[in-house]
Amino acid sequence: MPPNYPSILRQIAEAVRPEIGKGKVAGYIPALAKVPPDKFGIAIETVRGEQYYLGDADERFSIQSISKVFTLALAFRLEGENLWNRVGLEPSGNPFNSLVQLEYERGIPRNPFINAGALVIVDILLGHFSDPKAALLDLIHNLTGQDDIHFDEEVARSERETGYTNAALANFMKSHGNIHHPVAAVLDVYFHQCAIAMSCRELARAFLLFANHGSVPATGERMLTSSQSKRLNAIMLTCGFYDEAGEFAFAVGLPGKSGVGGGIVAIIPGELAIAVWSPGLNEHGNSAVGIKVLEMFTTLTGMSIF
Amino acid sequence: MPPNYPSILRQIAEAVRPEIGKGKVAGYIPALAKVPPDKFGIAIETVRGEQYYLGDADERFSIQSISKVFTLALAFRLEGENLWNRVGLEPSGNPFNSLVQLEYERGIPRNPFINAGALVIVDILLGHFSDPKAALLDLIHNLTGQDDIHFDEEVARSERETGYTNAALANFMKSHGNIHHPVAAVLDVYFHQCAIAMSCRELARAFLLFANHGSVPATGERMLTSSQSKRLNAIMLTCGFYDEAGEFAFAVGLPGKSGVGGGIVAIIPGELAIAVWSPGLNEHGNSAVGIKVLEMFTTLTGMSIF
Amino acid sequence: MPPNYPSILRQIAEAVRPEIGKGKVAGYIPALAKVPPDKFGIAIETVRGEQYYLGDADERFSIQSISKVFTLALAFRLEGENLWNRVGLEPSGNPFNSLVQLEYERGIPRNPFINAGALVIVDILLGHFSDPKAALLDLIHNLTGQDDIHFDEEVARSERETGYTNAALANFMKSHGNIHHPVAAVLDVYFHQCAIAMSCRELARAFLLFANHGSVPATGERMLTSSQSKRLNAIMLTCGFYDEAGEFAFAVGLPGKSGVGGGIVAIIPGELAIAVWSPGLNEHGNSAVGIKVLEMFTTLTGMSIF
Amino acid sequence: MPPNYPSILRQIAEAVRPEIGKGKVAGYIPALAKVPPDKFGIAIETVRGEQYYLGDADERFSIQSISKVFTLALAFRLEGENLWNRVGLEPSGNPFNSLVQLEYERGIPRNPFINAGALVIVDILLGHFSDPKAALLDLIHNLTGQDDIHFDEEVARSERETGYTNAALANFMKSHGNIHHPVAAVLDVYFHQCAIAMSCRELARAFLLFANHGSVPATGERMLTSSQSKRLNAIMLTCGFYDEAGEFAFAVGLPGKSGVGGGIVAIIPGELAIAVWSPGLNEHGNSAVGIKVLEMFTTLTGMSIF
Repeated sequence: MPPNYPSILRQIAEAVRPEIGKGKVAGYIPALAKVPPDKFGIAIETVRGEQYYLGDADERFSIQSISKVFTLALAFRLEGENLWNRVGLEPSGNPFNSLVQLEYERGIPRNPFINAGALVIVDILLGHFSDPKAALLDLIHNLTGQDDIHFDEEVARSERETGYTNAALANFMKSHGNIHHPVAAVLDVYFHQCAIAMSCRELARAFLLFANHGSVPATGERMLTSSQSKRLNAIMLTCGFYDEAGEFAFAVGLPGKSGVGGGIVAIIPGELAIAVWSPGLNEHGNSAVGIKVLEMFTTLTGMSIF
Repeated sequence: MPPNYPSILRQIAEAVRPEIGKGKVAGYIPALAKVPPDKFGIAIETVRGEQYYLGDADERFSIQSISKVFTLALAFRLEGENLWNRVGLEPSGNPFNSLVQLEYERGIPRNPFINAGALVIVDILLGHFSDPKAALLDLIHNLTGQDDIHFDEEVARSERETGYTNAALANFMKSHGNIHHPVAAVLDVYFHQCAIAMSCRELARAFLLFANHGSVPATGERMLTSSQSKRLNAIMLTCGFYDEAGEFAFAVGLPGKSGVGGGIVAIIPGELAIAVWSPGLNEHGNSAVGIKVLEMFTTLTGMSIF
Repeated sequence: MPPNYPSILRQIAEAVRPEIGKGKVAGYIPALAKVPPDKFGIAIETVRGEQYYLGDADERFSIQSISKVFTLALAFRLEGENLWNRVGLEPSGNPFNSLVQLEYERGIPRNPFINAGALVIVDILLGHFSDPKAALLDLIHNLTGQDDIHFDEEVARSERETGYTNAALANFMKSHGNIHHPVAAVLDVYFHQCAIAMSCRELARAFLLFANHGSVPATGERMLTSSQSKRLNAIMLTCGFYDEAGEFAFAVGLPGKSGVGGGIVAIIPGELAIAVWSPGLNEHGNSAVGIKVLEMFTTLTGMSIF
Repeated sequence: MPPNYPSILRQIAEAVRPEIGKGKVAGYIPALAKVPPDKFGIAIETVRGEQYYLGDADERFSIQSISKVFTLALAFRLEGENLWNRVGLEPSGNPFNSLVQLEYERGIPRNPFINAGALVIVDILLGHFSDPKAALLDLIHNLTGQDDIHFDEEVARSERETGYTNAALANFMKSHGNIHHPVAAVLDVYFHQCAIAMSCRELARAFLLFANHGSVPATGERMLTSSQSKRLNAIMLTCGFYDEAGEFAFAVGLPGKSGVGGGIVAIIPGELAIAVWSPGLNEHGNSAVGIKVLEMFTTLTGMSIF
């Protein structure tokens, strides 16, 4: 018998209420800094199509790094295991940012979820699509059934105007031969993917792909092989939360991905996807309340991959 | 219906036969260097007590770093979450060895499975036991029901005679205040724990503790809470295979731990533990055949935590 | 009595003849790769105006990093000690390139002679001059009396087309707030300064400024205070030769600066400047024959600052 | 005409008086922590035998790292250029301590003045002397004419009791094969050399060896070739002041060596040696007043190697 999700969601919301609005909203671009810190939404969708949600679960926000899972899925489907010649599979394990490791490892990023890795994934997509931004939106429209999900151009423009670290990473990898297309083209796609706006409900539905072993529950369309889906889940578990990945695996024990917009999505293989949004971040750049919600969720449901 | 384990084991043994005896046996101490490279054993034990094995599954070998799971379990049971004040939970992610990271992070090892972390765990055990070596053997005797498992003193002596890196790590952490007991005492326990000799069948049985959510199937004795057991599994998945942890999670997808003696143990939560022994190592210091065996095992059984 | 410079130059030329044409010419841009490896020139000019030279001492070549001394002199004259708020004074001491150190030190380059430091110096000049390229040529025209020294535009263009590492450095420092002008403007000046073409005789004369405690011997014009001149010499001694700076100080014992075009200039304070050109580089990126020439020069003249 | 040293010393003493007693005395061992912070002495001795001094110039203090110049001189005399196979010549350039660099460079210390390098020098001396401690005292007795200079055994004992970082370094280099004798023997010599007690006047006289191109002025005994002496001076200039070496070369411009006991010795080649003692340290571990004294000394005398 599946858990009583509505009751569990209410319990969680009750418990984290005092924390909501605390933490520091990402402030590196104005469009993110102005998001009200007390936004809070949760959405669950099961592989059977049941939906549970509360709070601001229908309000769209900047998904930021969560987009890296979508671009990775696109690239993995097209390249298969060849992908790993250009980007690694290991946790970055580095409290300092990734430039150091990138230098020691000669332009091969540790994994596709650090910024450098996501830039290489974009470069790969540029070799397959004349318009990777459109291809990415297509995928998300397919996964969610929502055709009006799009880029927030104000966010994308702000990302570009402050994106010197990403420009440094792309130029550095280009100097090592691991970026094949013009740096400006790579950055343009990257700044847009970070600026996709989605709601918790849309994110939960989109991530059902990974909970459902690679096919879309609503349509039955197979997008990834079962093996590819499992492997993406493994990467999410080991690399999905910056240098807090081990901590998250330890405390929550689910594959997932976070973004500095305050969103987190996680999945229980074979069962469901859950998305949380709360903009206040902890010192690792992950949603503080989001982590807590997921921790409680696994405790209360007793669900765990371990 | 559970998979047909005997048939699967035979298929695997057939497939890896050409690889057996290849790879480089650990050569840093004579006692390990003289192990015949063509040794090969597999053992499975399920939480229901069924046992399947083949090859040299009853021959004892040096478990080396696999012992770190046992000392961690002992320390975690005693200290609970306080443990994480003195050792981290994050993958080390460093192809260079851990001294660099240890320096940047002021003497706090990244996780309990790198050598530095295992030395801190020993230091913690020295605060709880007058004879941590005896306590460690007691635990293993309890888990396996085999009272004659012991230290290979020749191996322990060799470890000490060549253990300058470990002496460097312990002294360095002592300079940062993260080793409380005399360096010599810490090293003595550490060199002994690496020198424990166990067979595949014994290792599989001992690791049932982690497949069985913290209680020993044979006796029903609860050693860890269910939550503690899950958390140890999460650490094994993210940190159990040196800098190949992400690769292993990606390709195999099971919590486990390897040792340079050529042993690997992995678990499927709720179902079984599987131990492999093949002394030839890959470039990451993990048993080359062992990794391959586990990869085939998950493919053939369709079992995965993802 | 001053040494017999003509005889000493002949002795040196004789001794290094078998080495000429060996080593690897810088090949990262075509314009440098096509320079004949057997070019060889030496020029000495004393503070009293005596000139001694042999070989290809009148042929112009790409001065590359030697230009960093000229831009530093310009910036130091304008900013004085404030300069050191934005760039350090310490040897980089890093066999890996400077990106790592730059990251640990939050965008403040270790010294003005590593590329990152030279980019900051350009950024500073952009705050003082509407046309820093013209200002730089003016300085060199003043120092040498040669008004036709100019940029090799083919080299400058090639530098830009392959300058991804420098673009990475400039973007990275911009992300840390240590580049104030547009990255493209900074890179344009930098790629041009590296492309200045000068001969050994012109370089020796220009560096007399530093041998003559800050005033130009030919005109008497004071460009730097005596203290500033001494300080620039100290930086040349400790930082002028990439990660071979200590080796050079040990073997030669003179302040100087090298470039990957195969040029090296060094000075004996109060006495002379000496420039050598031989395009074959050693593994540190310094002219192999050039280092040898200077080592012999100090041995044969008995001149040393130590 | 040489400068009026007595007048200059008085001027300096006057100027730095307000700074004396400030700064932080080295506190890592009790024997150093209890030194009164307001101690202050200066001593000059010229190669012609003239002596000038003031303040506590006759009081002995712990010379600490200054001893590394003496052990290096001993080893260089015995090994010649072979020495550089086991220790480098480059500035360490690392604000973090040297363990990181040692790891990247496989156990070869960057230079003989970082602790790791000094330990290798001791290991070399252990291959030449049955009693390196006696050999070291012999050298110092010869250089100074003072036979009662000896180790402060209380300091040596304290060094040992807290010397975990040095034990880590020695063990780590032993693991890389760059320490040939037992770690304990190496550390014993090292802890004693740091504990040598000398006065400013004795230090100034001892360092005349390096000002006088390798022979002892008082006796005419040649200890180093002229070339060896110059080279030791070059190392002192580039590596003598930890990660402040470039700063010191820039501001003072003389070869020298500092110790955490608050002593600094510097030389003007061909002219004199000057020793200062003031226990308050700056953030780089060098005597704050000592640096200032030397800076003023070069300004007021106009003496500089540049």
